[in-house]
Amino acid sequence: MRITSETSTDGVREQLFTLGDVPGVLWTPDGSTGPRPLILMGHGGGRHKKDPEILARAHRFAADGGFAVAAVDVPAHGDRPKVPAYDRLVAENRARVAAGEELAPLIARFQALVSARTVPEWRAVLDALQRLDHVGPGPVGYWGVSLGCGLGVPFVAAEPRVRAAVLGLGGALASAGEAAGITVPVTFLLQWDDERVPRDQGLALFDALGSAEKTLHAHPGGHDALRPHEPDSSLAFFTRHLTHA
Amino acid sequence: MRITSETSTDGVREQLFTLGDVPGVLWTPDGSTGPRPLILMGHGGGRHKKDPEILARAHRFAADGGFAVAAVDVPAHGDRPKVPAYDRLVAENRARVAAGEELAPLIARFQALVSARTVPEWRAVLDALQRLDHVGPGPVGYWGVSLGCGLGVPFVAAEPRVRAAVLGLGGALASAGEAAGITVPVTFLLQWDDERVPRDQGLALFDALGSAEKTLHAHPGGHDALRPHEPDSSLAFFTRHLTHA
Repeated sequence: MRITSETSTDGVREQLFTLGDVPGVLWTPDGSTGPRPLILMGHGGGRHKKDPEILARAHRFAADGGFAVAAVDVPAHGDRPKVPAYDRLVAENRARVAAGEELAPLIARFQALVSARTVPEWRAVLDALQRLDHVGPGPVGYWGVSLGCGLGVPFVAAEPRVRAAVLGLGGALASAGEAAGITVPVTFLLQWDDERVPRDQGLALFDALGSAEKTLHAHPGGHDALRPHEPDSSLAFFTRHLTHA
Repeated sequence: MRITSETSTDGVREQLFTLGDVPGVLWTPDGSTGPRPLILMGHGGGRHKKDPEILARAHRFAADGGFAVAAVDVPAHGDRPKVPAYDRLVAENRARVAAGEELAPLIARFQALVSARTVPEWRAVLDALQRLDHVGPGPVGYWGVSLGCGLGVPFVAAEPRVRAAVLGLGGALASAGEAAGITVPVTFLLQWDDERVPRDQGLALFDALGSAEKTLHAHPGGHDALRPHEPDSSLAFFTRHLTHA
């Protein structure tokens, strides 16, 4: 792992890094030393590791919760090169939607393809980050909605270091089987009028989660309209499950 | 309104009162003077104004939020006399369930009968409480689940002083029409494995709420297993909507 830059904004240190060909970013409270719980965040489709949605929450988690927070670019996103196989599938999916097919199963198919790469990448990123003095081998949380949920479900199911996850804006078609393998506490965010994920598919993914402790938070509005109070509740959730462990 | 006793526990003053034949209880922070937002709480079926579920939340709202909190016995509950018409309906409902009828529509029918009395009673209780110096004419919140939701929906729809409500463990059969008339922010609590309210009925009641700002919080578990963290989120919700008004 190579740290390529370090800056500080509003009490939060931001370190850009690369691990092999994976570009990432790590946020920690300014001046922090010693181990602390780590939250890995997965960005949405077409977005990137420093998307405003990620950045605002990461700052909140680091500044107000004392967490280390990291995000990496998903293949074909952010600073990473295009992946011809993804482009072909996206083009094919567009044509199918234009021809009247449902969007949700096509999203699911795309996410399954991408997660075959991201699950091992993210596990390697955890390995590397946890060797840093100001991260260390503590408990890990995961936050990801939309594509970050589609990729997050197989990751959380596969990675025993993850002790709590915020997921959402995803449907059961993508990952009901893997969801059943998740047993850690989950907060699941659902937009009641989601135009990309049919409501029954979102409810079915929440239902499929194997976790004994899981909470569904649903709000009116479309796929891109998560509520301003959501970061408060995510911060309280991670604090409960990662810092009292 | 006649105040019949006053005690104090853990920093919270408890005043028992009667308004006509309605027995009630008012909790306020010890030593409080001057106006403050009021939260009216509606208890569950077969329970009463000082049920442990009510008492714990009322103390939390008063001690940690500075609210005035009140609850009254529903007719035929707590210190109030039996109501023969209710008993007849309950007995009839039991027989119908034994004969294989669904429970939910019968609960809905019972709640409609009771709310015809509680809506005017609760409005009169607000009038009386708001004349007290340590309550005053501020904004009002409502908290009620199960029977407290069935009676709360028509109350919140009818009472313009209510500016925010926590409802839940109720179904659309009881009150979808009145729910559409509610426009204030609502947090709706749903138990994913509720054995008394079918899941689709609970989701349909959330869907029916006319409020632009509404949140569904769903957790695994049966009707009587509300989560320990729920009071935290209700307190934050009332603080946001009643004290920043």
